Amino acid sequence: MLPESQKQIKLASRPHGKPESKDFQYEEISVPEPGDKEVLLKTIYLSVDPYMRGRMSNAKSYVEPFKVGEPLHGGVISKVVKSNSGLFKEGEFVIGMLPWQEYSLASEKEVRRVDPSIAPLSSYLGILGMTGLTAYFGLLDIGQPKKGETVVISGAAGAVGSAAGQIAKIQGAKVVGIAGSDEKVEYLINTLGFDKAINYKTCGNIRDALKEACPDGIDVYFENVGGEIGDAALSLLNKFARVPVCGAISAYNNTEPDIGNRVQGILIKSSALMKGFVVNDYADRFKEGASQLGKWLAEGKLTYEETITEGFENVPEAFLGLFNGNNLGKQLVKVSKIE
Amino acid sequence: MLPESQKQIKLASRPHGKPESKDFQYEEISVPEPGDKEVLLKTIYLSVDPYMRGRMSNAKSYVEPFKVGEPLHGGVISKVVKSNSGLFKEGEFVIGMLPWQEYSLASEKEVRRVDPSIAPLSSYLGILGMTGLTAYFGLLDIGQPKKGETVVISGAAGAVGSAAGQIAKIQGAKVVGIAGSDEKVEYLINTLGFDKAINYKTCGNIRDALKEACPDGIDVYFENVGGEIGDAALSLLNKFARVPVCGAISAYNNTEPDIGNRVQGILIKSSALMKGFVVNDYADRFKEGASQLGKWLAEGKLTYEETITEGFENVPEAFLGLFNGNNLGKQLVKVSKIE
Repeated sequence: MLPESQKQIKLASRPHGKPESKDFQYEEISVPEPGDKEVLLKTIYLSVDPYMRGRMSNAKSYVEPFKVGEPLHGGVISKVVKSNSGLFKEGEFVIGMLPWQEYSLASEKEVRRVDPSIAPLSSYLGILGMTGLTAYFGLLDIGQPKKGETVVISGAAGAVGSAAGQIAKIQGAKVVGIAGSDEKVEYLINTLGFDKAINYKTCGNIRDALKEACPDGIDVYFENVGGEIGDAALSLLNKFARVPVCGAISAYNNTEPDIGNRVQGILIKSSALMKGFVVNDYADRFKEGASQLGKWLAEGKLTYEETITEGFENVPEAFLGLFNGNNLGKQLVKVSKIE
Repeated sequence: MLPESQKQIKLASRPHGKPESKDFQYEEISVPEPGDKEVLLKTIYLSVDPYMRGRMSNAKSYVEPFKVGEPLHGGVISKVVKSNSGLFKEGEFVIGMLPWQEYSLASEKEVRRVDPSIAPLSSYLGILGMTGLTAYFGLLDIGQPKKGETVVISGAAGAVGSAAGQIAKIQGAKVVGIAGSDEKVEYLINTLGFDKAINYKTCGNIRDALKEACPDGIDVYFENVGGEIGDAALSLLNKFARVPVCGAISAYNNTEPDIGNRVQGILIKSSALMKGFVVNDYADRFKEGASQLGKWLAEGKLTYEETITEGFENVPEAFLGLFNGNNLGKQLVKVSKIE
């Protein structure tokens, strides 16, 4: 039995600096009826990701800004509860970019089936989904680590960083992670097999700590964080180093311009490459990436962690926690039970 | 008849900030005798280049620092005045990385013959030499401008910038130059055929001026300057823009860290690429580059300007002038007559 009404989360206001609860507004709306070639979906897992902060601002970016007064949306795993599409049956699971609602409508073209008998449902939002693919393409296409090279990963215990570091290990690189707690450092070394890990909050001078951890310099710096951590890593680049620029979470909540070391001199000295990217740049290679990630996962070469917050009422809190580094691995919200 | 003694220029002290005359020391030394497989060379043209500033500091870079108390050196065109080598005859002209001296010795492997009947001698230090090749590989290999794209060049009236801009025009791009005087702006537009040029000293806000000159954004930014000009250009990059980072002359004399806009956010938004390089990265393709540059020169598609300072006693002054933008095109010092 479907309820008569459900909840939706709208962007109440554009955050100034760090987002706050007041920037999100819950609204009671009806549960819609699917039209022709549409499905009604019940949200199971909802992904909250740092990149969403960018969409909450009214600035030109690679995706359109969210609109104030309209529902937020992102990666969601749902169960089909009503289907007017020949492509999907009730009870099947799908993934799509969907609004932050307990129930939502989608046209049959907007979603894609996922199979919980192949991999856990949540993994399609993480290691087998956008975050895994982000790590895969950023590291392999831009970073191109070679055997024996030193790869440094910032935000290393996050969803993308932990995948990128493991992929670098598979390539035979020495991997040094930077994270924000001793628990994360322990996880990187003992569970993921990183060669070294640094707690940037307790290490003292981060450049000195990195220099000590990377006696041969840095060949690949996978950038998730920016700020002073980025400055430190960039200052240690080797000749022909590569820097996939995936994120700069330290700057997402800045209200002033992000000021730090200019990189021109560094890049000239090292003939190094920095390249920004978003996973959609690689849309025509997603199949390749997902297939390889699935293979490594099945072979036990890749593992992942999830931080799962329970309840639709806790979506904003889970999102806000990303900027405090509360999550280990992929941060998800479990909105309803799978069965 | 050879003189008994000659002059040499040594690095007297490492410059603090902007180099000064006192950092250079003239010394009277003997004119040496060539040994086996050596030639004695009389300096005709001596190249002074911004990159030499980096070598005057005691910092790790892509080339070894100059040593205090030892002669400076760089690109030089010389005439063979005595030869103990079967490869070179007296009266022939050669190019090499040679000390700043009126006469110098070189082993036959250190120099390469240049032919003044093919192109003016000085051009082998400029458009057909390191500066032309720097523009060629930086622009074409990293910048990869496509027809109709917008290419912005800083330091556009310098030796590398003016070549890069013309090569971009040959590729069918719209080219916008940034330079430091009205005379240079006039030269870029009327002599080199740039589409637009900006005098950064008089344009007011450089970002606004660039935005107006580039209504379709920037697809390639050829970086010679860095600093606020670089910040402005980088802020206007289009999706998948490319930034060959060739120089950062605005920062070469800095005594403090070079602080400005961090680029991570910009690169992510635009999926843009920045790559530092030095011409020697392309050593195995010099033949290809020189041959193409020579062809364009012969076809009249490429032109160049030289600023020639006369007299060995004026080498430091010519070098120092680079940092005031005194030069139009390639800055050389003519040390002796060709005949």
